[in-house]
Amino acid sequence: MNKKLVLKLNGYILLFDAIAMILPVLVAVYYREKAGFAFLPVIVLCVALGLPLILSMKPKNKQLFAREGIVTVAVAWVMMSLVGSLPFFLSKEIPSFIDCFFETTSGFTTTGATILTNVEALSKCLLFWRSFTHWIGGMGVLMFVMAIAPMAGGTNMQLIRAESPGPKVEKLLPKANMTAKALYGIYIGLTVLEIVFLLAGKMPLFDAVTTAFGTAGTGGFGIKNDSLAGYSAYIQSVVTAFMLLFSVNFNIYFLIVARKFSAVWKNEELRVFFFVVIASVALIALNTFRLFDNIGGAVHHILFAVASIISTSGFATVDFNVWPDFSKTILVVLMFVGACAGSTGGGIKLSRILIMFKSLKREFSSLIHPRSVQTIRISGKKIDDETVKRVSSYMICYVLIFFTSLLIISLDNFGFETNFTAVVSTINNIGPGLAQVGPAGNFSNFSDLSKIVFSVVMICGRLELFPIMILLLPQTWKKY
Amino acid sequence: MNKKLVLKLNGYILLFDAIAMILPVLVAVYYREKAGFAFLPVIVLCVALGLPLILSMKPKNKQLFAREGIVTVAVAWVMMSLVGSLPFFLSKEIPSFIDCFFETTSGFTTTGATILTNVEALSKCLLFWRSFTHWIGGMGVLMFVMAIAPMAGGTNMQLIRAESPGPKVEKLLPKANMTAKALYGIYIGLTVLEIVFLLAGKMPLFDAVTTAFGTAGTGGFGIKNDSLAGYSAYIQSVVTAFMLLFSVNFNIYFLIVARKFSAVWKNEELRVFFFVVIASVALIALNTFRLFDNIGGAVHHILFAVASIISTSGFATVDFNVWPDFSKTILVVLMFVGACAGSTGGGIKLSRILIMFKSLKREFSSLIHPRSVQTIRISGKKIDDETVKRVSSYMICYVLIFFTSLLIISLDNFGFETNFTAVVSTINNIGPGLAQVGPAGNFSNFSDLSKIVFSVVMICGRLELFPIMILLLPQTWKKY
Repeated sequence: MNKKLVLKLNGYILLFDAIAMILPVLVAVYYREKAGFAFLPVIVLCVALGLPLILSMKPKNKQLFAREGIVTVAVAWVMMSLVGSLPFFLSKEIPSFIDCFFETTSGFTTTGATILTNVEALSKCLLFWRSFTHWIGGMGVLMFVMAIAPMAGGTNMQLIRAESPGPKVEKLLPKANMTAKALYGIYIGLTVLEIVFLLAGKMPLFDAVTTAFGTAGTGGFGIKNDSLAGYSAYIQSVVTAFMLLFSVNFNIYFLIVARKFSAVWKNEELRVFFFVVIASVALIALNTFRLFDNIGGAVHHILFAVASIISTSGFATVDFNVWPDFSKTILVVLMFVGACAGSTGGGIKLSRILIMFKSLKREFSSLIHPRSVQTIRISGKKIDDETVKRVSSYMICYVLIFFTSLLIISLDNFGFETNFTAVVSTINNIGPGLAQVGPAGNFSNFSDLSKIVFSVVMICGRLELFPIMILLLPQTWKKY
Repeated sequence: MNKKLVLKLNGYILLFDAIAMILPVLVAVYYREKAGFAFLPVIVLCVALGLPLILSMKPKNKQLFAREGIVTVAVAWVMMSLVGSLPFFLSKEIPSFIDCFFETTSGFTTTGATILTNVEALSKCLLFWRSFTHWIGGMGVLMFVMAIAPMAGGTNMQLIRAESPGPKVEKLLPKANMTAKALYGIYIGLTVLEIVFLLAGKMPLFDAVTTAFGTAGTGGFGIKNDSLAGYSAYIQSVVTAFMLLFSVNFNIYFLIVARKFSAVWKNEELRVFFFVVIASVALIALNTFRLFDNIGGAVHHILFAVASIISTSGFATVDFNVWPDFSKTILVVLMFVGACAGSTGGGIKLSRILIMFKSLKREFSSLIHPRSVQTIRISGKKIDDETVKRVSSYMICYVLIFFTSLLIISLDNFGFETNFTAVVSTINNIGPGLAQVGPAGNFSNFSDLSKIVFSVVMICGRLELFPIMILLLPQTWKKY
């Protein structure tokens, strides 16, 4: 293990944190909020720890292997969540440190699950920071650091691979830092576009920016107690559209910019994504239309809920917890499915599910015709056996983490539906679940132990499970 | 597709059904029950359909390929469940045919889920048939037919493979029909042994035989409304012991007979099985001991429940539905885990779970040390990549069937806990679930559609998913 390199990279992350916290301080200045002072000691701490790490650590080997990349990402995310929770704690607006940690982890991992029973009581600068963590976590911090500071050789993809969602991360451009820059470019562009659309609907600037942060990262923290229920249908529709846009593989936007529209159309994951969205809306509409005043309103709210869940955002305009079982079950399935690979969304990802279906089809074929040899293709591209194997391992790891955490949090005795969907919601970085953790509920009643478990599960989910597991393996720390 | 061979083999199954139904007729004669007449037309039907099939179908090629084996087993099980439900229907003791089909499928698949609200109202001969379906289904019908009538070449393992549980079925003896005979020998021996032990506890003969059938097949149909709660602690303990014995890979008994005790001890699945049982009992005891009068009673009932669930039997002495969430969650996890491969138990099977864990460990190793090559071993034996792949496909298929049926049955709107555990219970062939389908509840309230779905899911679960899926694929029926 090249510990010096890992530490040096984490020094950059601390510095990044310090810079990121300047924004909420500016918000505090504008609104003349005392809570802004809570950020200052944290900024000082980050610089005081980060700078010496960057300057003193001189790794002999600057080459980043998979192991170091994975460990760096895992350490960085745990550290970020710890550091990021300090302003909440120091401001005393969230009294328990574990609650602060849960809330910040939920932010960075773009989950959007909250322990707050009254969001609106928070200072604007803290609300801003809370939503900003979504935006930072959506695309990834190491990705950002790479985009602006090519530290570990400009061509290294290990960090991007460890931090980005999906079974296989492709290099868009010849150099990793250029790929990172391009992805961030798209990310910033789409975020600004959403803010503009929201402002056009007469949403206040503060609301527009924080909502856009929550949408872009597919996080789902709202700044109102009723999430987005109180805003106009236009604003809700803009958010619906952008939740879907941020669920799509960012490579698609590359292709659009390059005017390769046929390649966009050929993208299987994209087509399946829209098919799943439309089918879910139709099935839920058939099941729930009696609950709405008119069919237009039904489609509006159902599409919002489906987009919110499949994008793993978690915003709400209605309380889907009161829908019939069938509709709720569809939402639970969508929670597992999640968004497209290479987006800011969470969940298992459609491309993994496509790979699994196709490998099942291949297995059936080989049972029927034992001598046939079939390859798995997605969008016409061959998927190698290594990727298929890694998807299986991902699923095994998923089930393992899922049931382990379900078991621990069941000690709180909140009932099977709450327990199960709370884990579904955190491992897939959604936000709300059903029953007590439904859109009208929150995670405040869980014990400290459960909140820590949920926090770990959220980080596991955001980093696609392996990094945290590997961080904890003794094997990782052995010399070889 | 060699349809003639498939039909001929199913002719044997029909004949087997006819012979099997003689036993409940004898029971009816002994107890002078009119319901016994319901069996006679069914016996005539079976012979009238079966004999011509056996005699007229003269397949040119008697070699059974994987495809034919799988289709034969799938067709046989659906047909058996249909034919077996006729006596219930003709006797009018279960008025709805779909209820009869559900109950019979639940019997043959050794699930033990019931639609009966008052089991004790059934005639003795029908109660006998109900429990006897467990015994027949436990080891498999085609296995039985092979043991007594070597039709398709004595060395063919395809039928045994398609009907037996576990990721990899080993030939115990050089010829398939000898393997089938040996397995049935052990099965009969253990069943008789259990009857003797139960009789020693002064259990009435009828109760002892039907309870032994339910234990041997790991089915769980009781003949009392309170399952086994009303019997003595001795009788309950005998059932506990035999539920565990029937959860073990039958190869173990081969090894014991051959005095290869070190090989028994080396069996990893067996050791993990007992570890899981002991750990579960300990954890549940810590969580629930307040609910019991004394620690001895607690361990007695908890061990019974754990053995009942992990063996996928489903007998009950207490209503675990009133236990705290943590204990219930352990039971739900055990429902998924299931028994050992090569036993009469259902569930995913411990050996599959072992293979999955080990392949995950291998994946982590290859991430940490990209150049290392590791093989997966269980009990010291190498597991080839083909088997690992098949386990993954099994799991994908499992999840697919699971969520599809969850979605359909959720239309009945019985709440998430009932819906979820009803599917867990049927796909893993357990019997009870939680909430409305807990040990004190039953499946009677579900709609006809749901009951059909559950029946299909039970057959899928018993045949380890692939046969029914392959039966439904158009590809299977194409010429090649």
